[in-house]
Amino acid sequence: MLSKQITGYLDHSSWIRKMFEAGGVLKAKYGEDNVYDFSLGNPDLPPPPVMAEAMRELADKAHEPFAFGYMPNFGYPDARRALANFVNAEQGVEVAETDVIITCGAAGGLNALFRAVLDPGDEVLGIAPYFVEYGFYTENHGGVFKAVPAKPDTFDIDFEALDAAINHHTRVVLINSPNNPTGKIYPAEQIAKLAELLRKKSSQFVKPIFLLADEPYRFLAYDGVKVPSVLDAYPYAVVGSSFSKNLALAGERVGYLVLSPSMPGKQELMSGLILANRILGYVNAPAIGQKLMMRALVSGTTVDASVYVERRAAMAKVLDDAGIGYFMPQGAFYFFPRVPDKFAGDDVAFCARLQEERILAVPGRGFGMPGYVRLAFCVDRKIIENSAPSFKAAAA
Amino acid sequence: MLSKQITGYLDHSSWIRKMFEAGGVLKAKYGEDNVYDFSLGNPDLPPPPVMAEAMRELADKAHEPFAFGYMPNFGYPDARRALANFVNAEQGVEVAETDVIITCGAAGGLNALFRAVLDPGDEVLGIAPYFVEYGFYTENHGGVFKAVPAKPDTFDIDFEALDAAINHHTRVVLINSPNNPTGKIYPAEQIAKLAELLRKKSSQFVKPIFLLADEPYRFLAYDGVKVPSVLDAYPYAVVGSSFSKNLALAGERVGYLVLSPSMPGKQELMSGLILANRILGYVNAPAIGQKLMMRALVSGTTVDASVYVERRAAMAKVLDDAGIGYFMPQGAFYFFPRVPDKFAGDDVAFCARLQEERILAVPGRGFGMPGYVRLAFCVDRKIIENSAPSFKAAAA
Repeated sequence: MLSKQITGYLDHSSWIRKMFEAGGVLKAKYGEDNVYDFSLGNPDLPPPPVMAEAMRELADKAHEPFAFGYMPNFGYPDARRALANFVNAEQGVEVAETDVIITCGAAGGLNALFRAVLDPGDEVLGIAPYFVEYGFYTENHGGVFKAVPAKPDTFDIDFEALDAAINHHTRVVLINSPNNPTGKIYPAEQIAKLAELLRKKSSQFVKPIFLLADEPYRFLAYDGVKVPSVLDAYPYAVVGSSFSKNLALAGERVGYLVLSPSMPGKQELMSGLILANRILGYVNAPAIGQKLMMRALVSGTTVDASVYVERRAAMAKVLDDAGIGYFMPQGAFYFFPRVPDKFAGDDVAFCARLQEERILAVPGRGFGMPGYVRLAFCVDRKIIENSAPSFKAAAA
Repeated sequence: MLSKQITGYLDHSSWIRKMFEAGGVLKAKYGEDNVYDFSLGNPDLPPPPVMAEAMRELADKAHEPFAFGYMPNFGYPDARRALANFVNAEQGVEVAETDVIITCGAAGGLNALFRAVLDPGDEVLGIAPYFVEYGFYTENHGGVFKAVPAKPDTFDIDFEALDAAINHHTRVVLINSPNNPTGKIYPAEQIAKLAELLRKKSSQFVKPIFLLADEPYRFLAYDGVKVPSVLDAYPYAVVGSSFSKNLALAGERVGYLVLSPSMPGKQELMSGLILANRILGYVNAPAIGQKLMMRALVSGTTVDASVYVERRAAMAKVLDDAGIGYFMPQGAFYFFPRVPDKFAGDDVAFCARLQEERILAVPGRGFGMPGYVRLAFCVDRKIIENSAPSFKAAAA
């Protein structure tokens, strides 16, 4: 029935499905509140109050022709303008509205970029651990995804390994900062070094290598750490992001791509992105989501993310008490601790043991880095605190 | 900057862009109301009143966590259920909710199907004239799009030509009824004959050939003509559709795919579609659009399409008076008249002449059938009526 590739994907992901099914069985048996589910990056903060207001305003105009009709494939012009202003304020750059395109979430944006620039066999290089969907997004468009492991424990970019991995097939280098699953934020020096490397390689291979920065967690950084902008650091930089987290619009699918204002030939790339947005069947980002986004951006409100500071501290305490070592996340809402020694690096075995204690976690191999597990702390603090004895038991 | 294929698409479509730009110049010069723009299939009916009500209800819950959050990749379970009920009532079939998936418009649905089933080099066969995006949707996923011309003037399926065109690469046969751009509705006998042909060919090539029916205009049929359902006619039938037209939700991107309830192995296909929906970056159909759709389906209301009956009559009269021959559309909102003899089949020349008279139309070659032009009559009746002298002048 299915293509060979999709059949392969389904076979390959059967272990994840089984894990989720096992989690469902646990919840059915013990009740939702008695299972400590850290497996899903499903942001649980309510939308900001401006959303209700915006919805009512849209309701008042819902009887008009074209109220929810087609608009240009790049989005409503005024929404595009508001987005450019937002990016400029957030990243300290000066992009024009013609440098941004509104997309069907960040996922739609990344797919549109890959559709626009990848020839068959072109490579996209990521840094492991990485969001598993990157591999699918690349292969959707005939590309080959390769990952260069980050340095252990600190999750810094391993420049020696990255330098060695870039070849004449490399079309895109993809970073994700704050990182899912590690919470790592690359400091400005690493971004500068990366830009320098990509300049050198672009020149060596006589074609621009794009730096794609996937930044849905940019708004969520702790301890005053800043997320440096790639847009002014490298001319072939593209930022992908979404309003899934900072506006709690995950299901409505609103995201964007921004091109570096100094990119040579950026009009051509934007034409390709607009075409890709259309022909991939997104056509345009959802009309209502765009209008909600615009309203929120103009009013300057987002979700109240302060609760994550407490959740992070609570999770750190739970792991400390269980003697589980970890990198303290600088952003996003994930811990990516090492598997305790007694599991000899077997992340699947550790997840199985956690599941016996009613804890749901995702093995690091799901992110291209075995030996770790991902714990998403976008859950109620009580769930985090109540999980302490279970973590202790599993790690003991 | 761009991939070879996307560069080719942009080069190839430059004539369409130029035509639209010329239209824009005309509007700037003469004013919007003095240009007779029949070039866009942009439905202009207002959403049904239930939409405003539904938006207000959603506003009342917009402060809740997950109000617009993630849901399963196939859509909200209750929206999926409402959709299955709607399809059953509309098509007189009995599909289960697990036979339907909510998609990012029909465009997202068609792309998801092609992603799920096409191996590289697999062919999708359409009937010309056809919606030009089909070619892109196919090539997005490594497929090859081929079109078999319909019979001239009646636009019936040419079964001899179709039989000859199906080979061991054929994976999908794609029909669109009511048709864009002709307004043709295939009668039940042709659907039965098509099913018979596909059964024979599937058996000959020892693999199922899918029949994909793209039906966004199903609700818009004239003179009591019925659009026969393909779902009970052929086991490997898939219906794609959207709520762009019947709920005026074109910009919000809500559509669906339905599998024939008698399809062997349909669970496997549905797994592939759900995966494709996710990895192509739609993730899920927009949350708010799904909820609006559900509300409208449960209440049983749609746009008031009765105005199209008058518009069709007005357009027919304009063409009659100008001596332009045409097939009377049985559904949808397009006329696809033949180019008058004096243009010797040159549809681009006729469109250029129409443009001199401030009429915007699309050459048939944009739909894989030169010698005709498409006129979209989803515009105010006054625009149709006022265009009469211009059509006369251009055709004289």
